[in-house]
Amino acid sequence: MKEKITIIKVGGKIVEERETLLQLLDRFAAIEGNKVLIHGGGRSATKIAEKLGIESRMIDGRRVTDEETLKVVTMVYGGLVNKNIVAGLQARGVNALGLTGADCNIVHAHKRPVKEIDWGFVGDVDEADGKMLAALIGQGIVPVVAPLTHDGCGNMLNINADTMAAETAKALAPYFDVTLTYCFEHPGVMRDPEDATSLIPEIRTDDYRRLKEEGVVSGGMIPKIDNAFSALAGGVTKVIITRADAIDGKQGTHIML
Amino acid sequence: MKEKITIIKVGGKIVEERETLLQLLDRFAAIEGNKVLIHGGGRSATKIAEKLGIESRMIDGRRVTDEETLKVVTMVYGGLVNKNIVAGLQARGVNALGLTGADCNIVHAHKRPVKEIDWGFVGDVDEADGKMLAALIGQGIVPVVAPLTHDGCGNMLNINADTMAAETAKALAPYFDVTLTYCFEHPGVMRDPEDATSLIPEIRTDDYRRLKEEGVVSGGMIPKIDNAFSALAGGVTKVIITRADAIDGKQGTHIML
Repeated sequence: MKEKITIIKVGGKIVEERETLLQLLDRFAAIEGNKVLIHGGGRSATKIAEKLGIESRMIDGRRVTDEETLKVVTMVYGGLVNKNIVAGLQARGVNALGLTGADCNIVHAHKRPVKEIDWGFVGDVDEADGKMLAALIGQGIVPVVAPLTHDGCGNMLNINADTMAAETAKALAPYFDVTLTYCFEHPGVMRDPEDATSLIPEIRTDDYRRLKEEGVVSGGMIPKIDNAFSALAGGVTKVIITRADAIDGKQGTHIML
Repeated sequence: MKEKITIIKVGGKIVEERETLLQLLDRFAAIEGNKVLIHGGGRSATKIAEKLGIESRMIDGRRVTDEETLKVVTMVYGGLVNKNIVAGLQARGVNALGLTGADCNIVHAHKRPVKEIDWGFVGDVDEADGKMLAALIGQGIVPVVAPLTHDGCGNMLNINADTMAAETAKALAPYFDVTLTYCFEHPGVMRDPEDATSLIPEIRTDDYRRLKEEGVVSGGMIPKIDNAFSALAGGVTKVIITRADAIDGKQGTHIML
């Protein structure tokens, strides 16, 4: 039987604000056994870009990453956000190692081809190297992964953090019994975001199609749930969408094939 | 007999300018066997701090690191500079892993106590964990180390890069036959910086005392050579001070006990 591993993905908002970051660090440190943290870091990149006089261009909530913006996200996601999490986890006795996909060549990707939109230095993931990651984890290391990788030609690339989480989870599936938890600001997928009792406890493939048709699931939730199904199809045991204060996986929406 | 390892320390200026960075990456990639790269990153931090409206205060060439400056150096050294080197080395087939001393808790340090000067979040190194680093290197990983670590209480700390190199070299000495090469803008320690033929090929303890008395060695060279002697006293086999285009270790000034 494979050992269990818990992969937690948290959004930029949680890791940027001191109070929610500290709560997350406490909760993540309390998770027993093998674990991985994958973080976003969107808003602080926007703020720092603004101060540096670099305009942030977003399309459908995703960042267009020109050369100057790439420098900002490499600094902010790979440096500021990532290392503060690492230092915070080390202070809690967690042997954290900050990584981008470029480190140890863990995530292979290519620059997204230009079609209607030129996304700049945004990457699409080809493959993640689960063997190297599993070897690090086997040494008691807890990877803390920033949503960045490289193109194999010397350029860094900006990667969607939800996708990074799904790809990391899939890559680890041959080595571990993987639970992937996406944390965001709601208790899970809701029929009505204003009504806490409208949480949908389970979404299967058929439900998902129907929820999309009904318009219950829309916007940014679609790529998140697509990533969740992709992870399951890639061998991940369990995917949960929940709030950052419920990373024990007992609440939230369970996505199932 | 212990395996050999080459530790190269390069200053910020080399890794910040595209042309010298690319040359360094080629030369570093060509070094055979186990290796570690330790980099500075001073000038770009100053530029970015300036754009962000943060004043850089330097005393004797060392940066006073208040809370805002700490954010800048964490971004720039740990993110921008470090990850660009990692991506550049990966493109050259080197399995680079970007690290600060906080990652895997490799470098234990404390915030420098306030005496005449309050250095802010500048760290003094207590100890580096050679065992963890040696285990990573044993897996074929090439550490790329930024001059940052943590205080064990959740704060990052700014570390002098020459000191980081000496401490890393000492920590690896029980596991490897270590050569430490400090690269800077001159061919080595010079009697007259204007005269290329005035290179001092060897400096032993007695020579060093005399050279300081004569004023041949002064300013920023003193802490560099102090670090070199500290490394030798800590079990490092060989320490060389040379130019970045001579990292094969055949030229430069050899420091000897």
